[in-house]
Amino acid sequence: MPNGSSRSTDLQFSGERFSVEYRLHGSAADARRRADLLCIDQTVEAADHVIPSGAIRDQLLGRVIQLEALTPESHRAVVSFPIELLDGTMSTLLHMIIGMAGLQGQIRVTDLSLPDAVVSRLTGPRFGSRGLRDLLRVPRRPLICAVLKPLGYSPQQLAELAHEFALGEVDLIKDDQSLRDHPFCRFEERVARCAEAVAKASRQTGKRCLYAPHVSGPWPSLMEQAAKATQAGAGALLLCPGLTGFDAMTSLAQLSSLSLPLIAHPDFLGSHYVTSDSGIAPAVLFGLLPRLAGADITIYPTYGLNYPISEQDCRQIAAACRRALGGCPPILPTAAGRMTASRIREMVTLYGSDLVFILGSDLRREPTHLRSACLDFLRLVEAETSPSP
Amino acid sequence: MPNGSSRSTDLQFSGERFSVEYRLHGSAADARRRADLLCIDQTVEAADHVIPSGAIRDQLLGRVIQLEALTPESHRAVVSFPIELLDGTMSTLLHMIIGMAGLQGQIRVTDLSLPDAVVSRLTGPRFGSRGLRDLLRVPRRPLICAVLKPLGYSPQQLAELAHEFALGEVDLIKDDQSLRDHPFCRFEERVARCAEAVAKASRQTGKRCLYAPHVSGPWPSLMEQAAKATQAGAGALLLCPGLTGFDAMTSLAQLSSLSLPLIAHPDFLGSHYVTSDSGIAPAVLFGLLPRLAGADITIYPTYGLNYPISEQDCRQIAAACRRALGGCPPILPTAAGRMTASRIREMVTLYGSDLVFILGSDLRREPTHLRSACLDFLRLVEAETSPSP
Repeated sequence: MPNGSSRSTDLQFSGERFSVEYRLHGSAADARRRADLLCIDQTVEAADHVIPSGAIRDQLLGRVIQLEALTPESHRAVVSFPIELLDGTMSTLLHMIIGMAGLQGQIRVTDLSLPDAVVSRLTGPRFGSRGLRDLLRVPRRPLICAVLKPLGYSPQQLAELAHEFALGEVDLIKDDQSLRDHPFCRFEERVARCAEAVAKASRQTGKRCLYAPHVSGPWPSLMEQAAKATQAGAGALLLCPGLTGFDAMTSLAQLSSLSLPLIAHPDFLGSHYVTSDSGIAPAVLFGLLPRLAGADITIYPTYGLNYPISEQDCRQIAAACRRALGGCPPILPTAAGRMTASRIREMVTLYGSDLVFILGSDLRREPTHLRSACLDFLRLVEAETSPSP
Repeated sequence: MPNGSSRSTDLQFSGERFSVEYRLHGSAADARRRADLLCIDQTVEAADHVIPSGAIRDQLLGRVIQLEALTPESHRAVVSFPIELLDGTMSTLLHMIIGMAGLQGQIRVTDLSLPDAVVSRLTGPRFGSRGLRDLLRVPRRPLICAVLKPLGYSPQQLAELAHEFALGEVDLIKDDQSLRDHPFCRFEERVARCAEAVAKASRQTGKRCLYAPHVSGPWPSLMEQAAKATQAGAGALLLCPGLTGFDAMTSLAQLSSLSLPLIAHPDFLGSHYVTSDSGIAPAVLFGLLPRLAGADITIYPTYGLNYPISEQDCRQIAAACRRALGGCPPILPTAAGRMTASRIREMVTLYGSDLVFILGSDLRREPTHLRSACLDFLRLVEAETSPSP
């Protein structure tokens, strides 16, 4: 190989960079070493003798632009990279922020700072909170979403449940993430029956209600399910980007034939956040990433239950759903997981009115009073969020 | 909703079950509570009053079939589920083993036991170690794979490198995972030039060499890249299932138009294994899962470097690559990450001869002697693994 060709003379960068904030575990010396290694591992991942002088060494490598102690054993580093290393896909964004460094552990992504040029190439939500509220004609109060479960019910049983929920005037009804395309409950029959049941109840109440089936599987069947759901009258779609890849959410949000709001579910994303010194902080994992990928609503565990997530984490997720982010409209955070009426005030105090209550088992304590349980919850939410007289 | 319809009278299961082995953090009482919760969270994820009597409660829920103390603060649980909850996709398998329970942390998947009926519905490797060795006409010795890097090189520079490696008689040449479809190094031009350079060198040496470009991005562009790579003469494909989803690997392995061996790369899978009390153990994450999804070679961090992985973990990955697994042929484990000649004996002692050495920066200490560095490594590997005279 001619020696001369190892200089990359044609390589040019705009100079515009995006940056990633990390929390690094260890002493000041450890943090410096880790930050310097990040600059290499997240770009060329090569030994020093393989990195040529010129544009690769001077511009392509990551750069530590801030490094400061949070505690003696924990440091905050901000590392920048050229925007030319991104390509408008979520998979390349994930690769760039933690793909290789994540294999070492003790490094956690805590924030992203993306120039508008980067955000505009990503899909972002098609509806956002405002667009979804326009669809539902619910301008201000928290939205209510009931859940179809349990797995094992027949399409007919789930449709009966959906009918009752819609008569109870909930705004959304979503499949539980466990519902897929099982021999005992086929996707197509379930979606057709549930969509029909919801439409029938909606005509009766005069209240709009969106049914969100869970679409899953490899990309071709995912797209086929999305198309069938649209045709059957679904009003939104539920997707698990941890299983499908975040790019699948982007693809659904981009499809012009599919004009439905998207709900992101955290299935199989747990490993990324459960350990506080590695992975990806909840605000990024459940806030920024689903929003950039095109989710209109993001579901995640609520603090105070069995999950290693704090009130502060949930507040930061909401902030990530709402902060200025290029042309991305704000999206809706959620209060999910054994949610009961007793937590309405607490959730509204934390999130304000722009959130979705996800209601699973609690609505069903009295199986013959589903409709009134939904209406009761709605009244309590309205009372909690109406302006005082 | 009529009361009667909440009984699921039509639901029937074969009785055949698959099982997942977990390590649960905490006392005996904690472990019992976690194991019982797993049975529910990984199936219906509902409160007790929502779980109807009959088949759902009796057969669909998970069942704790073993629970024993490993230490006072760590327990081993084996939980079984009906095979009807799987559907032949990797995403549903991942959902079933840890999808929801993973959101709690302190639960780690340590093994899977899948009946043949389950394995046969998954894709599995098309080649396996034996098929790949037949392609390469290298029946026994460890294989050698060189890596094209760094990111920032032009297609021409990478092709020159590939040419030298192939003259050095390596068996495989793979793109670094950082190579995608960048403005300064387009996928199509890179793959065409590198495949051509490798073919030219192969004609000269008479030694077969497979070039494995990295295919990435959302499913449609992934498939387009795979098709273009095949057409351009690529000999294998590199894929990052952590970014694309494991189902994308299955799809590639199933495509009859695409008869190329697949190499799985661990990019963005780090969070799943770096904490020993949560996520997925290396043997499952880097052994069983890629093998079930259709990888012929699996790449993962090697012990003794900067990664939280032990020699025992690597031994168990190799065992997971090779153990009886329905109709799945054995696949190849790897020795990767700053691999040098000084570790050949250690790696062969650990893995035996059925492995792939992944050689990155070390081959390039003398940029004008790439070819001889490859040949030297090959001779050392042959010497280490030939039967004694």
